[in-house]
Amino acid sequence: MTLNADDKAHIRAIWPSIASHAEQYGAEALHRMFVCHPQTKTYFPNFDFHANSAHLKNHGKKVVNALTDVVKHLDHPEASLSHLSDLHAFTLRVDPGNFALLSKNILVVVAVHHSDQLTAETHQSLDKFLNVVSGLLTSKYR
Amino acid sequence: MTLNADDKAHIRAIWPSIASHAEQYGAEALHRMFVCHPQTKTYFPNFDFHANSAHLKNHGKKVVNALTDVVKHLDHPEASLSHLSDLHAFTLRVDPGNFALLSKNILVVVAVHHSDQLTAETHQSLDKFLNVVSGLLTSKYR
Repeated sequence: MTLNADDKAHIRAIWPSIASHAEQYGAEALHRMFVCHPQTKTYFPNFDFHANSAHLKNHGKKVVNALTDVVKHLDHPEASLSHLSDLHAFTLRVDPGNFALLSKNILVVVAVHHSDQLTAETHQSLDKFLNVVSGLLTSKYR
Repeated sequence: MTLNADDKAHIRAIWPSIASHAEQYGAEALHRMFVCHPQTKTYFPNFDFHANSAHLKNHGKKVVNALTDVVKHLDHPEASLSHLSDLHAFTLRVDPGNFALLSKNILVVVAVHHSDQLTAETHQSLDKFLNVVSGLLTSKYR
């Protein structure tokens, strides 16, 4: 799955609304994922899973900032993700299915805060974007 | 996966907001699903997939009303779904994976319109509810 010109335009249009709330939205997406899919907690030992915890904010910010970096280089997403692809493939070994769970929760957080911007077309582009990122993050697994 | 007392309370609390917009929300969820996952169009020949089409409204209303019927009998969801389980297993034979796609889009529509009510806890209960329904709708496949 590749992003076409419309997808890139949709993502570039909505992403500033997300990037400017990196810590909050990242924490909310992670929190919803941990609540709805408790199996995802296994990768976070000694983590404070309570809503708005410092751990959630810190990690949530990292996740959204990493995505923001990809959005800045949408024509070459693999370049921005090279380090994170290595990390997930060789060290973290996160179940590839979990990326879809986090993607779904990011989508819900965007829907909650930016319902006016999340048209069906932008929703589609965001789905595709998060799929591309998930694919790249698991591309080096072996 | 079964629904506990908290889940049932959360679903009963949010569902009236959804049931009272059955046609609109059903149509929007189907529209988003068809846009984001075009493979789901295969079960709807001669269907008008344009946003707000009469087909979308008519089928969307059916879907939400069927869910409303299940919510009215949350202690025995299988009873409300018996006819639809037969229909999906013996006639429609919809790819079981597609129920998760529609569920995700229903969740997004609820997030878009009722962000204040869709807390992480209600989100979790709604996920579980839609999973239970999807499981029942594919339970008779053979």
